[in-house]
Amino acid sequence: MVLRLSTLFLRTLREDPADAEVASHRLLLRAGYIRRAAPGIYSWLPLGLKVLARVEAIVREEMEAIGAQEVHFPALLPKEPYEATNRWTEYGDGIFRLQDRKGADYLLAPTHEEMFTLLVKDLYTSYKDLPVRLFQIQTKYRDEARPRAGLLRGREFIMKDSYSFDIDDEGLEASYQLHRGAYLRIFERLGLDVVPVTATAGAMGGSRSEEFLHPTPIGEDTFVRSAGGYTANVEAVTTVVPEPIDFSAAPAAEVRDTPDTPTIDTLVAHANASAPREDRAWTAADTLKNVVLAAVLPTGEREIVVVGVPGDRSVDLKRIEATIAGHLETGGEVAVEAANEDDLKKNPGLVKGYIGPGLTPGDAVLGADASTGLRYLVDPRIVSGTAWITGANEQGRHVFGLVAGRDFTWDGTIEAVEVREGDEAPDGSGPLVAARGIEMGHIFQLGRKYAEALGLKVLDRNGKLATVTMGSYGVGVTRAIAALAEANHDDRGLIWPRHVAPADVHVVATGKGAEIFEAAGKLAVDLEAAGLTVLYDDRPKVSPGVKFGDAELIGVPTIVVVGRGLADGVLEVKDRRTGEAQNVAVADAVALVRGIAAD
Amino acid sequence: MVLRLSTLFLRTLREDPADAEVASHRLLLRAGYIRRAAPGIYSWLPLGLKVLARVEAIVREEMEAIGAQEVHFPALLPKEPYEATNRWTEYGDGIFRLQDRKGADYLLAPTHEEMFTLLVKDLYTSYKDLPVRLFQIQTKYRDEARPRAGLLRGREFIMKDSYSFDIDDEGLEASYQLHRGAYLRIFERLGLDVVPVTATAGAMGGSRSEEFLHPTPIGEDTFVRSAGGYTANVEAVTTVVPEPIDFSAAPAAEVRDTPDTPTIDTLVAHANASAPREDRAWTAADTLKNVVLAAVLPTGEREIVVVGVPGDRSVDLKRIEATIAGHLETGGEVAVEAANEDDLKKNPGLVKGYIGPGLTPGDAVLGADASTGLRYLVDPRIVSGTAWITGANEQGRHVFGLVAGRDFTWDGTIEAVEVREGDEAPDGSGPLVAARGIEMGHIFQLGRKYAEALGLKVLDRNGKLATVTMGSYGVGVTRAIAALAEANHDDRGLIWPRHVAPADVHVVATGKGAEIFEAAGKLAVDLEAAGLTVLYDDRPKVSPGVKFGDAELIGVPTIVVVGRGLADGVLEVKDRRTGEAQNVAVADAVALVRGIAAD
Repeated sequence: MVLRLSTLFLRTLREDPADAEVASHRLLLRAGYIRRAAPGIYSWLPLGLKVLARVEAIVREEMEAIGAQEVHFPALLPKEPYEATNRWTEYGDGIFRLQDRKGADYLLAPTHEEMFTLLVKDLYTSYKDLPVRLFQIQTKYRDEARPRAGLLRGREFIMKDSYSFDIDDEGLEASYQLHRGAYLRIFERLGLDVVPVTATAGAMGGSRSEEFLHPTPIGEDTFVRSAGGYTANVEAVTTVVPEPIDFSAAPAAEVRDTPDTPTIDTLVAHANASAPREDRAWTAADTLKNVVLAAVLPTGEREIVVVGVPGDRSVDLKRIEATIAGHLETGGEVAVEAANEDDLKKNPGLVKGYIGPGLTPGDAVLGADASTGLRYLVDPRIVSGTAWITGANEQGRHVFGLVAGRDFTWDGTIEAVEVREGDEAPDGSGPLVAARGIEMGHIFQLGRKYAEALGLKVLDRNGKLATVTMGSYGVGVTRAIAALAEANHDDRGLIWPRHVAPADVHVVATGKGAEIFEAAGKLAVDLEAAGLTVLYDDRPKVSPGVKFGDAELIGVPTIVVVGRGLADGVLEVKDRRTGEAQNVAVADAVALVRGIAAD
Repeated sequence: MVLRLSTLFLRTLREDPADAEVASHRLLLRAGYIRRAAPGIYSWLPLGLKVLARVEAIVREEMEAIGAQEVHFPALLPKEPYEATNRWTEYGDGIFRLQDRKGADYLLAPTHEEMFTLLVKDLYTSYKDLPVRLFQIQTKYRDEARPRAGLLRGREFIMKDSYSFDIDDEGLEASYQLHRGAYLRIFERLGLDVVPVTATAGAMGGSRSEEFLHPTPIGEDTFVRSAGGYTANVEAVTTVVPEPIDFSAAPAAEVRDTPDTPTIDTLVAHANASAPREDRAWTAADTLKNVVLAAVLPTGEREIVVVGVPGDRSVDLKRIEATIAGHLETGGEVAVEAANEDDLKKNPGLVKGYIGPGLTPGDAVLGADASTGLRYLVDPRIVSGTAWITGANEQGRHVFGLVAGRDFTWDGTIEAVEVREGDEAPDGSGPLVAARGIEMGHIFQLGRKYAEALGLKVLDRNGKLATVTMGSYGVGVTRAIAALAEANHDDRGLIWPRHVAPADVHVVATGKGAEIFEAAGKLAVDLEAAGLTVLYDDRPKVSPGVKFGDAELIGVPTIVVVGRGLADGVLEVKDRRTGEAQNVAVADAVALVRGIAAD
C-alpha cells in the first residue's frame, strides 16, 4: 500500500527538540519516527515501525540461517529463577522490580538466560537433543541510571537475544562461531560498520566474550586497536607484564622526611631536590601511588580497597569494576568509586597523601594489610624486584627504594589504570590507538554457570548426567536503528541505508496542476506494482520547499520529483545521499528506480 | 524452510498437565505450543509462535484495510497520564505498578487510551487532520485476581488495540462501524464464531459499546439472545419496566407480627397462613427483598448500600457492578459484595431478615434513608403503585401493602437482579435464552472523556477549538488462539482452522527404508516450493504410532503419510478434522494437497 503523506500519521518538526543531545535522537524525533513517552522510553510512529520491521527481518533471517529457532518469552518474570543464579541481587538498581497483588516478587527481564535454561531443562533430556540454538526478538527492560541519546541507551528497548546449548566445549565454540558469523552478516546487511572486540564478561559470567562495537565519537565505550589487528574494549585490555627483577643487590629501603608532598608532583620535586639521582631525574613513574577506593557490593555494602599503581598512571574505575568482583567474596556487578571522607575516618591508618603498601611505621619489612587490615591490590606493572618511592603511612614521610616482593606484598593483581594510546598491545601487534564505539552486539561463552545453578543436565554418550554448556548472544535492535541514523545523516536530515529505509522511494508531487498529481499518483502505484515500497507526498497545499525539506529530513534513499518537467514528459530522480539528480522520461522512470533500488 | 521434527524445539507430552483446567490449555501445553512461566504468564515455543504470527497477520491486514495505521507504544508507562483520567486510582489492584530507581511511579499498561490521546494531541491541530485511526499489536498487562485457563485469562497477553479520533459524533459512528465490520471479518477469517452483543462500558467510560463473544460453555461471560435477534451481555440487559399503577384506591399499609420469618420462604408461608389472599396464594414475587451490599470504591472505602428487589429474584452482583458507579460519587471500577458482619454492626438500624425501605417503626409514611442514612436503590420492577410485603425494620415484623411511591421512595433505580431465561428482550423481540461466551473483542464509543481529561482539542471548521471524540477497540490476540484451540479439538488433539495452523501440511515418514525418508523429504521440499508451509516428521527412530499421535495432537489440518504404500507409488492424504484418508499417486500429491489447502 502506497503511504500517502496526506493521510500518514506524521508531523515533521522544524525545530530541534530541546532534550535531544545527539543527531540520531534529534532527527528521529524531527522526522516523526519516534516520540518520547518517559525518560528512556519511546513510542514508535508508523515510519519508525517500518524501519523496525526491516531491521527485525534481517536479524531473523540471519538467525534462522544458522539454525536458530524463534521462541518468545514473557517480559514479566518471577523472581525465583533469578534468585537461583543470584542475579536478583546482583543486578542491584539496574532492573525494574515489582510485586503482584499477592505480594509475589517479579522483575521486568533485562535478559533471559535463566528462562531459556529452564525451558531447555523442561524439554530436553539427552545429548542427542543437542545442540539447540534458540532466539527471540523481544522487549527488554533496564532501569538505567542515565538513559541517554534517545534509542541509544533506553530503559525499554528491543533486543534479539539468543542462547546456545551444547554438550561440550567444542560444541559451544561452534555455536559461538556461528553466532559471530551471523552477527557480522547482520551488521553488514544493515549497513552498519562494526568492530568485534575482546570484552570482559561482567555480570553475565562466563569465560569468553566479544562485543561488536560501532565506531562513533558519541559512543560510550572506549576500545583500542593496534596496527597488527588487535582490538579490545578498554576494560578487557591486558597489560604487558614486565619480567621480574633480581633484587638481591638492591639497597635497603629508607624512610625519609618529605614534608608537604601529598601529591605525586610535589613528591617528585622534593625527591629531585633532596635526593637527586645521578643517571636521570626522578619521575612520576618511579613512585607508587596508593589509591583508596570503595567497592560497592550488590548488597549495598562498601568494602574499602587500596590499589597501588605507578604514579604516572591514573586509575580507571571502569577497568577496575570489570574484574574486581573476582578479588572480593562476591558475584555480580560491583561499582567502584573513590573513598569518601566517611570511609577514610573509619580507617585511621590511612594517612592521606602519604599512604604506603600496608606500611607499619618503623617496620623495615613491609607486609600487606600490616596496619590497615584492608585488601591491597596492585597494577600488573608492580612486579617482584621493582623499587618505588611511596608513602610511609606517616604524615610528611615517604619511603625510598621500597622493593616489591621483598619489602611488601599484595593480595592480588588487577588491571587498574587507564589504557593509553601508545601502550603495547598484549599480543605484541604494536602500539594501541583508542577509539569510541557503541555496543551493537555482544556474544558470550557462558559455560556451565547457569546450567549448574538451575540444574540443566542431560544424559551424555555414556548414559551419565552431564551439565550443559551455554552461550548467550545479543543484538540491540532499537539501538541499531539509532546507530544507523547517527551514521547516516547530514544537516538536512536522515539518509537511510537502502535495506532499512522506511520505503524504497519517495515520490514528491510539486505544483498545482491536477495532471501532476495524476502522473505522480500513477507513478507511485506503478513503482509499488514493480515491487518497491513507496512514500508519496500527495499533500495538495504544501509548498515544494516544504516537501523537499521533509523528503530530505525523512531520508528515503531515492526521491522522484514530479513537477514542472512533466510538461516535457520528464521526471527528476534524486539520490538523497549524494544529492545527484538526473532527468528521466516518464516511461522509463519505473525501470530506472527499480534498477537503483536493486543495487 | 521446512520444519523438521528431528530438530524442531518441541517435546509433546503424553499426560495432561495437572494444572490445566480446560481443553485448549491442556492441548496447547501438550502439543508444545506454549509453556507456563508464572501464573497467567506464558512463553511461546516455535509452533505457537507460527500460529501467533498468522493470527497477527490477519488482524493487521483487516486493520490496514479500514485505513488504520500501525504504531507501537511502550508497555512501561509513567503514572501521570493515567492520573489525569483518574484511572491510576480506578484500576485498583487490577494493574501492575512499580517505581523506578528514582522513585517515580510507573505502570504496565493494561490499555493505552491516554497515550494515544496524548500522541494525537502532540501531532495534530486541525479538523482537517481527522479522522485518524491508529492501532498497535502489543503486549499488555493486567494483574488478574484469578488468572485462569491458560491463555484465556492471562496477566501478560497480546492485544490489538486501536483508537479512532473524529471531530464529531457522525465521524465517531463511522469509525465505530468500520471497526465493527473489520472485527467481524477478522473473526470470520480466523474461523472463530462470534456474536456481537450490547455491553456496558465499565471502567472505560463512554456511551456505547459492543462485545464480540465467542459462544462456549467454558466462557466467563453470560449473554442472552432472543429469537428476534436481540443480543446482550447480561450486564447490559435492561428490564422491561412495568407501567406505573394508580394507587389512589390502594388500602393503607399495615405492620403485622410475623415471628420467625427472616427468609422469603418463611415469610410467604406465614403470609399465606395468617393473611390468605382470596384470588391466589401469596408468592415470593409479592415480597420486596432488601439486600445490604458493600460497594468497594477504587479508593478502598466501603459504602453500604441497600438494594430492594422482588423476593423471587436473586441479586446479580456483576450486573450491579456494571452501573453502580453512576449512583455513587465516584468513577472507576466499583466492586460489590455482600455486606459483612462488621458492616451490619456499624448500621444497627438494619434488622437482619426484617429490613424494609428506610422504615421508621410506627411511621406510616415511609421515606428513603429515614432511619439508616444509607443509599436505597431498587430494581426497575419496583414502579410507582406496586404494593409489597416487606420488612418493618423490627425483629419479627413485616409490613403488608406497602405502596411504592406512596409509602416509600428510593434514591435510584438499578439493574440489580439476575437475568432469567424467559425474561422479555427489552426490544420486544421475544423471550431471552442464555449462553456463555468468551470476550474476543470489544468496541467502545468513548466520546470526549479522555480528550477532555487530557486536553485534546483541534480547530474546527469555524476556527474554534473543539474537543475530539474518540473510540477504542480491542481484540485479544493470544486469547483468540486459546478460543480457537478450545473450539477446534477432539480427544486426540488440536484441529487448527486452515488459516491459523502452524503449517499447511504435516508430512509423516513411517517405516525404516531410506527410500521412504528420501521420498518424504522430497515431497516436503516440493510442497514448500508450491507455496505451502510444511512440518515434516523426519525422526528416524520414532514409531509410526507415536508419529501419528503427535500429528493428531499438533493438529495441522492436512497430514500426508509416506509409508508402506510408497512401494506401489502411493501416499496417503488425511484430513485431520474428518479423519478421511485418500490414496494418491506420488506424482499427484503436491497438486492435491495444494488444492486442499487453497479451499
